[in-house]
Amino acid sequence: MIVIMRNDATREEIIKLIEKIEKEDCKVSVVQGEKQCVLGLIGDTTRIDPSKIEAKEFVERVTKVQQPYKLANRLFHPEDTVIKVGDETIGGNKLAVIAGPCSVESESQIIEIAKKVKESGAGFLRGGAFKPRTSPYSFQGLKKHGLELLKIAREETGLPIVTEIMSPDMIDDFERDVDIIQVGARNMQNFELLKQLGRTNKPILLKRGLSATIEELIMSAEYIMSEGNEKIILCERGIRTFETYTRNTLDLSAIPAIKRLSHLPVIVDPSHAAGMWWMVEPLSKAAVAVGADGLIVEVHNDPENAKCDGQQSIKPERFKSLMEDLAVMANIEKKVI
Amino acid sequence: MIVIMRNDATREEIIKLIEKIEKEDCKVSVVQGEKQCVLGLIGDTTRIDPSKIEAKEFVERVTKVQQPYKLANRLFHPEDTVIKVGDETIGGNKLAVIAGPCSVESESQIIEIAKKVKESGAGFLRGGAFKPRTSPYSFQGLKKHGLELLKIAREETGLPIVTEIMSPDMIDDFERDVDIIQVGARNMQNFELLKQLGRTNKPILLKRGLSATIEELIMSAEYIMSEGNEKIILCERGIRTFETYTRNTLDLSAIPAIKRLSHLPVIVDPSHAAGMWWMVEPLSKAAVAVGADGLIVEVHNDPENAKCDGQQSIKPERFKSLMEDLAVMANIEKKVI
Amino acid sequence: MIVIMRNDATREEIIKLIEKIEKEDCKVSVVQGEKQCVLGLIGDTTRIDPSKIEAKEFVERVTKVQQPYKLANRLFHPEDTVIKVGDETIGGNKLAVIAGPCSVESESQIIEIAKKVKESGAGFLRGGAFKPRTSPYSFQGLKKHGLELLKIAREETGLPIVTEIMSPDMIDDFERDVDIIQVGARNMQNFELLKQLGRTNKPILLKRGLSATIEELIMSAEYIMSEGNEKIILCERGIRTFETYTRNTLDLSAIPAIKRLSHLPVIVDPSHAAGMWWMVEPLSKAAVAVGADGLIVEVHNDPENAKCDGQQSIKPERFKSLMEDLAVMANIEKKVI
Amino acid sequence: MIVIMRNDATREEIIKLIEKIEKEDCKVSVVQGEKQCVLGLIGDTTRIDPSKIEAKEFVERVTKVQQPYKLANRLFHPEDTVIKVGDETIGGNKLAVIAGPCSVESESQIIEIAKKVKESGAGFLRGGAFKPRTSPYSFQGLKKHGLELLKIAREETGLPIVTEIMSPDMIDDFERDVDIIQVGARNMQNFELLKQLGRTNKPILLKRGLSATIEELIMSAEYIMSEGNEKIILCERGIRTFETYTRNTLDLSAIPAIKRLSHLPVIVDPSHAAGMWWMVEPLSKAAVAVGADGLIVEVHNDPENAKCDGQQSIKPERFKSLMEDLAVMANIEKKVI
Repeated sequence: MIVIMRNDATREEIIKLIEKIEKEDCKVSVVQGEKQCVLGLIGDTTRIDPSKIEAKEFVERVTKVQQPYKLANRLFHPEDTVIKVGDETIGGNKLAVIAGPCSVESESQIIEIAKKVKESGAGFLRGGAFKPRTSPYSFQGLKKHGLELLKIAREETGLPIVTEIMSPDMIDDFERDVDIIQVGARNMQNFELLKQLGRTNKPILLKRGLSATIEELIMSAEYIMSEGNEKIILCERGIRTFETYTRNTLDLSAIPAIKRLSHLPVIVDPSHAAGMWWMVEPLSKAAVAVGADGLIVEVHNDPENAKCDGQQSIKPERFKSLMEDLAVMANIEKKVI
Repeated sequence: MIVIMRNDATREEIIKLIEKIEKEDCKVSVVQGEKQCVLGLIGDTTRIDPSKIEAKEFVERVTKVQQPYKLANRLFHPEDTVIKVGDETIGGNKLAVIAGPCSVESESQIIEIAKKVKESGAGFLRGGAFKPRTSPYSFQGLKKHGLELLKIAREETGLPIVTEIMSPDMIDDFERDVDIIQVGARNMQNFELLKQLGRTNKPILLKRGLSATIEELIMSAEYIMSEGNEKIILCERGIRTFETYTRNTLDLSAIPAIKRLSHLPVIVDPSHAAGMWWMVEPLSKAAVAVGADGLIVEVHNDPENAKCDGQQSIKPERFKSLMEDLAVMANIEKKVI
Repeated sequence: MIVIMRNDATREEIIKLIEKIEKEDCKVSVVQGEKQCVLGLIGDTTRIDPSKIEAKEFVERVTKVQQPYKLANRLFHPEDTVIKVGDETIGGNKLAVIAGPCSVESESQIIEIAKKVKESGAGFLRGGAFKPRTSPYSFQGLKKHGLELLKIAREETGLPIVTEIMSPDMIDDFERDVDIIQVGARNMQNFELLKQLGRTNKPILLKRGLSATIEELIMSAEYIMSEGNEKIILCERGIRTFETYTRNTLDLSAIPAIKRLSHLPVIVDPSHAAGMWWMVEPLSKAAVAVGADGLIVEVHNDPENAKCDGQQSIKPERFKSLMEDLAVMANIEKKVI
Repeated sequence: MIVIMRNDATREEIIKLIEKIEKEDCKVSVVQGEKQCVLGLIGDTTRIDPSKIEAKEFVERVTKVQQPYKLANRLFHPEDTVIKVGDETIGGNKLAVIAGPCSVESESQIIEIAKKVKESGAGFLRGGAFKPRTSPYSFQGLKKHGLELLKIAREETGLPIVTEIMSPDMIDDFERDVDIIQVGARNMQNFELLKQLGRTNKPILLKRGLSATIEELIMSAEYIMSEGNEKIILCERGIRTFETYTRNTLDLSAIPAIKRLSHLPVIVDPSHAAGMWWMVEPLSKAAVAVGADGLIVEVHNDPENAKCDGQQSIKPERFKSLMEDLAVMANIEKKVI
């Protein structure tokens, strides 16, 4: 940690601050510039709260040297994390493809789509049972009944199921019934939920919040990991910017960034990012080319009558041809689907 | 609702779409331009899902005419909502000032600050018991013990207490013990929490999410209201932009915008917006000048040793002089503190 | 300047880097942490290019300690700059109000508006002769003829005139005819234009670019000042964010920030920020409350037939009542109009 | 164009507005909803200024149906534009690769790099002679001498040269000496420059501004085209968002979006987007996968001593291996380098 003093800080103030820091078992190295004094803190600075130091009127600002996360940090865990889900894996040289409808609507719908995406090579089935919707008047999902239908689809196809949790009180059901528990963008900093998921044994698919920085996304993974569950899959799904042509702006630079900072696998959701079905194909290919460990794609057999997000779902035939392209693309990246 | 067709949409496709919309009890008015056809939907369009229409390949895009909220809409409720909290009110010609520390740290701390802010004219005491922190390793609040300390401070001073809830399982405790239940920016779209708060009888202070639009903020209020609780206080606390000098960018234009769109009272949090104590004073004055119904301000007797957010807390003396300025400012706006 | 090395940087690499920096007449202070090494550079670091250091694979990143601007820096020039324009001043205890139409449309129009705003107390007349428009098919201003009409309005009213320059080849005309030369948001980093304006002797009204940081705005002022012209008035006019209800998001926190960082006067443009006439009044009052040195407001006698930006112009009567409110507001801030 | 009236608009106001619009040779179709009235404007609405209509107090807002650009619009020009530059082409089934240093530093530097990038298959040489720098104290380029050195490098290698123009007064020199004239992000809305470039006969490489929407980028192309020069190459180079890990956020969704909206070729600059050399490779591959017509990449033989942007330049060897990967990638997209 680096503390930059205001240029009018007195010698006395500086000495008092150093003494205070040293009480926290850190050593302080003083860099005396011509105008300003800078303190370099050496040792375990995780116990020092930068905002306390910035609260002093004679401090200009504080800059961190080390990342604030440990368990998720590649520095302390150089190898890629590979997560096993049934017979499938996520991370490493596998390109994980999760596909399915925005929401589970009926038994026949989810089974039909599950079969189709499996045929095309998807490794996992997605489908929302509990749906976070901006409006209280929109379809909120089939809830527990939706979970039951997902289980039937799993039985029919063998595909592990991925679905979103919205509240801590559903954790027992999800832990029992679901293969990968998804935390949506809006709950990325629902810290109570994160902590409780950290006490389960299930892989967690953690989506980046609409305005979350890469560091904040990794810190939310750290929340889960700090409670014991280290099976986290990160997911880039578009961030909110001034551009309104696309629903969100897919931040593909985040993929190599996360790969450098963390050992956790990271996948991409091209459907929510763009919000338009005709962008799913080029963005999926770009995601593989940039180094993502997988994709989560909305596929619907009848998008025009889908209960939600029809405009961003692709049909099974289009998904099939996409998967063929992705296989070639994955090959260049030395991965297999 | 307005549907803009692609310029290559066929007559047949247009007719089929019209028939489908009319089945939902809407009438359709066709505007045939030279290049493109536009459909105007007349009637109650709340049952029509724009994304289903946009899922059609021959539709360019859909534009809403009416706001998607009803209960929070000024159109259907022209008078300002005034919320009673004990002997105090929020909204109308009252300028509500909520003040106190970021987090409750000890009995003596919270009582001392409560007395000081009361002396200076604050109408409510704030103080975090459950703290949402980016890092799992940061101080997470005194939790239930913090609630107890707040109750003692209320008994000592008579000030109603405002504190943040983080999880639905605490709702019973909060409903019993707290005067205004705060929903933090990170939980603005924690829809499960919103729905359950809608079934309580307590005023809710709903903070705008870091990347939430004004419409989304009002929609989150609508979530609570749709369950029966109409006592909502909105709060602008800064949005996330590219500017990094300030922690967030306080969006004061949101105040007149919300006042025009909704009848709910709206207050401003200058402390979290800027993240720097020396900005609290000018931003507070600007908030009153722009028409806010109140302020929520972090005040700490010893910011340099505060357990969180010391850098953005002001000392009781500064708060006192701020309150004097605000009284004059409020007067111009025909309000009283 | 602080250089943070990667944790795998070798001793040899560090020594080589230190030697290189010391050749630029800087001293280096080494802070050896447990994991990472940090270098503190002492002396005049303005000649050191951070990007060269970051180009080294063993360097993590570089952090600046000092602001990169000197002439505009309050550190080296603690007193507020006050700029004289004819008999008027901008900065200090004066609240400068610049008012007038978006664009000059005719002699009678500009004279009528000029007289009206003068009556209400405006100190300066604004009016666009050269208009930067997003579309090549929109009205581009009366150009040189517009300048002539502004001069006539000045003669009629005595108000100094403020108008925007779009290209270096107009500098001679502007230097001769105009009292304050405005640089629009889109040209804030048109460095050729800035440099050439630095060689004139006229006050420059420099607007913040739509996505410019506060530091970049001040750096653009530094460009002009580095060529000799130190009469710069900065202007906050809204930044581009994800919020689309308002045209831009007025960043009022920028006012106290700029006041702390620089000695230059700073004014606010509430008309372009919001893009809606009914927001001009509350935002103007907030701008004064937050500490701005003045305002630039669009006033039009017939907004519905204005050749541009009618939706954000207020009528002279509304301007009159606004000025009465602002006078009271200014008084609280110990300023006079 | 669609005009949405306020719900309190009177019949009289609506009729007056319709009469006014019809005077501009547009027909008006009235859609009378239950609460609000909506007007659909039919005919050539390009002469109608939405802001004039929005200036009326009884109008809620105006929504455009057609894109505001014509010459750049794929609607009126369905085939891809292919631009010939010497023996090379940009657009169509060619993947154009422009490579070279951030700035021209010396004869030997530019010739050496030019030879290296040519060997690896680049089709064009880039190199800055006039450099837009945030600070007036940074290296500003070799200016006219830089142009001379670029010409020598072209003679040595046969590579067409691409370099940035900063001011209209250099247009004659650029038209004579340069093969593709680049307009930088900061000048994307320097309309005077755009118009004058529209009167030249040289291909223009137009970079997207840091906060420019896709529509604004195409409108800036329209500016150039409206003056007669239709040889425009668009370039995505990252937009400004809240994420600070990368210098900018590369918006790869913009590529399929632009391809749908316009017939102009569009390339990607991965170097300026990320601002870090180690991201250039994955982002380049993603750009090809998403459908870009080419790349502009910073290559330097000695990044650590580069006069600018060394941190984002890759070395010739790395460029060579990147080109091999890109050739395979291009092949999947049915393109050749």
